[in-house]
Order: sequence, then structure tokens, then C-alpha cells
Amino acid sequence: MDVGGTKTSAALVGPDGAVGPVVTVPTPAAEGPAAVLAAVAGAVRALGGDPVAVGVGSAGVIDPGRGCVLSATDAMPGWAGTELRSRLGELLGLPVAVDNDVHAHALGEAWTGAARDARCVLLVAVGTGVGGSLLIDGRVHHGARQVAGHLGHLAVPDATGLPCTCGGTGHVEAVAAGPALQAAYRRAGGSPDAPDLRAVAARAAQGDPPAADVLATGARALGRAVGGLANVLDPDLVLIGGGVAHCGPAWWDPLRAAFAAELLPPLGELRLTPCALGPTAAIVGAARLAWQQLR
Amino acid sequence: MDVGGTKTSAALVGPDGAVGPVVTVPTPAAEGPAAVLAAVAGAVRALGGDPVAVGVGSAGVIDPGRGCVLSATDAMPGWAGTELRSRLGELLGLPVAVDNDVHAHALGEAWTGAARDARCVLLVAVGTGVGGSLLIDGRVHHGARQVAGHLGHLAVPDATGLPCTCGGTGHVEAVAAGPALQAAYRRAGGSPDAPDLRAVAARAAQGDPPAADVLATGARALGRAVGGLANVLDPDLVLIGGGVAHCGPAWWDPLRAAFAAELLPPLGELRLTPCALGPTAAIVGAARLAWQQLR
Repeated sequence: MDVGGTKTSAALVGPDGAVGPVVTVPTPAAEGPAAVLAAVAGAVRALGGDPVAVGVGSAGVIDPGRGCVLSATDAMPGWAGTELRSRLGELLGLPVAVDNDVHAHALGEAWTGAARDARCVLLVAVGTGVGGSLLIDGRVHHGARQVAGHLGHLAVPDATGLPCTCGGTGHVEAVAAGPALQAAYRRAGGSPDAPDLRAVAARAAQGDPPAADVLATGARALGRAVGGLANVLDPDLVLIGGGVAHCGPAWWDPLRAAFAAELLPPLGELRLTPCALGPTAAIVGAARLAWQQLR
Repeated sequence: MDVGGTKTSAALVGPDGAVGPVVTVPTPAAEGPAAVLAAVAGAVRALGGDPVAVGVGSAGVIDPGRGCVLSATDAMPGWAGTELRSRLGELLGLPVAVDNDVHAHALGEAWTGAARDARCVLLVAVGTGVGGSLLIDGRVHHGARQVAGHLGHLAVPDATGLPCTCGGTGHVEAVAAGPALQAAYRRAGGSPDAPDLRAVAARAAQGDPPAADVLATGARALGRAVGGLANVLDPDLVLIGGGVAHCGPAWWDPLRAAFAAELLPPLGELRLTPCALGPTAAIVGAARLAWQQLR
């Protein structure tokens, strides 16, 4: 399962990581945790088959040991405090494993995706926000409060003064996330015919200067922050995923250049790798947790 | 042993971490690795006692598994490539364990110092440069190329345009390390009677505005970078050490404030902790490695 603030996806995943057809339902986030859990259980039942366990990657800060939601954004009111593992286990009569959705994404890529042979993996997910996950020896580094991975709030020069979703200013999320790119395009006097980021990316690909500039500015800021972080963590592999990663060369080229310029000499060969699994990554990673729990 | 570019220190360390008197000799770095190794061996012999193993924390990027120096700065010509463990073992007839000196520093604090009860520790060492070490479950995170911990090269807004020792610009080391603080004090028209950082700190304590401003600017930039990194790593404890950490409240107060302002809400109680062991920390941590190797 991949439980997000707007939609919930589920698929059957075999012990080898093979994924069946994906069932997607809206997440009734505004109706509270009981409605969300019922929708999640409904999606599992809609899959049919004969699942032996359920793995859940969920939005929010998750305590995988206790199986509960520690905190969540306003997009999921009441989600914080939900005893996700036990309540879903009761609804379905199956063992349940849970973790944060970005961590699940990283675990999926490490199992059957682009990070298969890597021991230390830094995943950077760039979408509505900028988040991440760190795998060390194939396991999620959760940190002392299960908060680890929040790399969107690194201060970067290119974001000076820009307000961040966290209440601070000057963070990489404030210049590099999808909504930040769209806002910058509007500020730059971009075409009103570009209603979303996909349209901005299409215009950048056609050579529209404001669109290309906006994507390059966000990408450079992100590349710089991730490069600096790579010097601290020295990963085998840095994975880039999320919706913004579909913006094409107008985004990827300045991202790769800024990243490479930051690396210390011993890391010179390190490259940014696109995620391989697409939207099923978190489902696959969550299933991995469920299979591991059964052993 | 703590082998640095200018001096080498050694002490006997018991199985409980108790440290005997410290012997310090100059490191004949310019004379090459053979001379350095001879000086190191001489320091061990000068200790007397009956050591059963030798632990070495050394400047440079160290591969602890192979026991060799992977790279080093120009301060230690030829040090890169030195088979530290085997050559020192031959000279002394004892088992030898080696790691980088900053990692050894963190291990020492985790054994008998300020990080005793912590599982995930971020050490920030601020001196001639800005470096660090990350301990996860009590063990050093070395990364894929043994480079992990290099947090001095995170880009920070306050360092924009300032040249860094790595060849880049805009890194936290370029605004927060000791030499950067002294250079900023000279640029600010500070008193020519302040020949070193200790004198700048003394002037800041007396209320000298340029001295206080310079320390505060460096400290704020560092606090911001370390706060952002804490959001990524979610450590139990952030340790602050190195010579610059002796600059008093004119440095610590803005450091703590900038750090706290960056933290995401779940990390709100995280504080910066001064290192406790002083100059013997790396010796103690290196000894810890040697004792562990004997087991």
C-alpha cells in the first residue's frame, strides 16, 4: 500500500518483488483516520488474490517499531496518533508492517529498482515537497525520532528569503519543490497558458526562456544541497525521484552540473540516478517490509 | 595515538577508557611517511608501560578495513597510500587499529565522554577546518569511499562567494572555520593586537563590536548548516568540538540560536552539546578501536 494525502494505491507483490495491477482509491483524508483506514482496507479487499501480509508506506512521520503515526501534515487531519499497524491488522486479519512512504519508496528501489546493488543510498524525492530517505546497509536510517530524511529544509543560497512550508525561510524546498517552481514561473511573467508544472516543463523543452530559467534555478539549488549532503554521507548511489524529476533535460542538466560541482574529489565519479520503479516504488518497498516481517 | 599534520600525541588507555599522561611529539610531516611512522613508533615507546595493541586516529581519509591512508592534504606529503596498520605493526610488533582522527574523536566521546548514552551522534569539529563524524548505533558511518563526515562543504547563504579550501566557494568552512574567522576580523578592520583567534575571542568577550560580529556571523552560518543536517540525520546528540568551540558565549549563543531556529518541530528539544574529553578524545577513541580489535 502507498497511503498519501490524496490517493491510496495497492498492489499484490510477490516474494520476488513482482508487482501486479495497481488499485487506486481516493484517500478520504478530511473524514479522519477511521475513514482512511476503511478505504485502505477496502483497497486491499479490491485486490483479491490471497495476501499473506500487508505492507504500508504512509504519509507522515511513522514509528515502524510501534506501528503508529507520530505526526502528519494538515493534509491528513487526525492522522497523527493513529495506531496504523494494529487497527489495520484488526480490519484485515493479516500481519501489517508500516513505514513512511518516502522510506518505502527507497526500499522499493533498493529491492527491485535502481539501487539494487547499493549499500548506502540517498533518495531525494522532489514533488509537492522535497524529502528523502537514507538507506545504510540496505536498512532505513530512521534517526532518534523517526524524522531522518527531511532534506528539504537545508538552507541554500538560492532560496534566501523564500518562505518554506515548515514556517522557516531559505530552504531548498522553498525554491526546488514543484509548487515553488510554478510560483517562480508566475513571478517571472511566464505564460498564463502553463497551468501546471508539466506545462512549464513542456515550455522549457521548447526553449521558453522564463520556463528554462525557473527550472534551472530550482535544479541548481537542489543539486548544490544534495551535493553537499553527499559529501557528508558518501553514499554509493544518489537516487532522484518524484514528480519534478519528469521535467526533462532542462531540469536534469543543471541539476547534474550543480551536484557534480559540489563533490569532493574522492566522490568525483558519483552520479545522480533516476528512480526506476515509477509510482509503484513505495508499494514495492512496503511489501518488502511485510515479507521481511513474515520471516 | 592521535596523528595530526603538526603534532602526534599518544597515551596509554585502559580497557575502561582511563587515560594516562599524554606524550606529544612533532609530526615530521614534510619528511614523508617513513619519518612520520618512526616518530609515531617513538612516541609509543616513550610511553613505556606494556601496551597490548595500538589504536591510531590519523589525519586524512583512512580505510579502516585495509588499514591504509586513502588521501591526505598537502600538510602531509606522501601520506596518501601509506599502509599505516601493517607498517606500524611491523615497527612495534603489536596489533594496530586505524581510523580517521575526527572519527576517532567521535568514538572517544561516545565511549567515555559527552555522547556516552547516545546511539546516533553527529560530531561537528570546528578548527582549522570544519569536519565531522556520524556514529550510528555506536559505529562510525564511513560511507562508500570512507569520506563520510565532510560537513564543512555544505553551501550556506552567509558564505556566498567566499573561497573554500576545497577549491569551491560558499561553503560553511569558508565562513566558520578558525582561519575564516581571523580573516573576517582583519577585513572588518579589527584590532591588529589580535594575533590569533583566542585574542579575537577575548576581544569579543570584552564587547569589541567587530570581534563579536565576526564570531556571530561564523557561528550563525555553522548553526544553520548543522541544524539543517540534524533534520536529515535526526541524531540523539550533536556534539561540538575543535579549537573554535573555545570562543565563549559570543560564539556559542548565536550558534545555539541559529541551530534551534532550523529544527523541525519533532527535533525541538535537540541541543548542541560541547565535547567533554578535550584534546585526548581522539586518543581515547583510537584506543577503543584497538581494544575492540583484540576481542
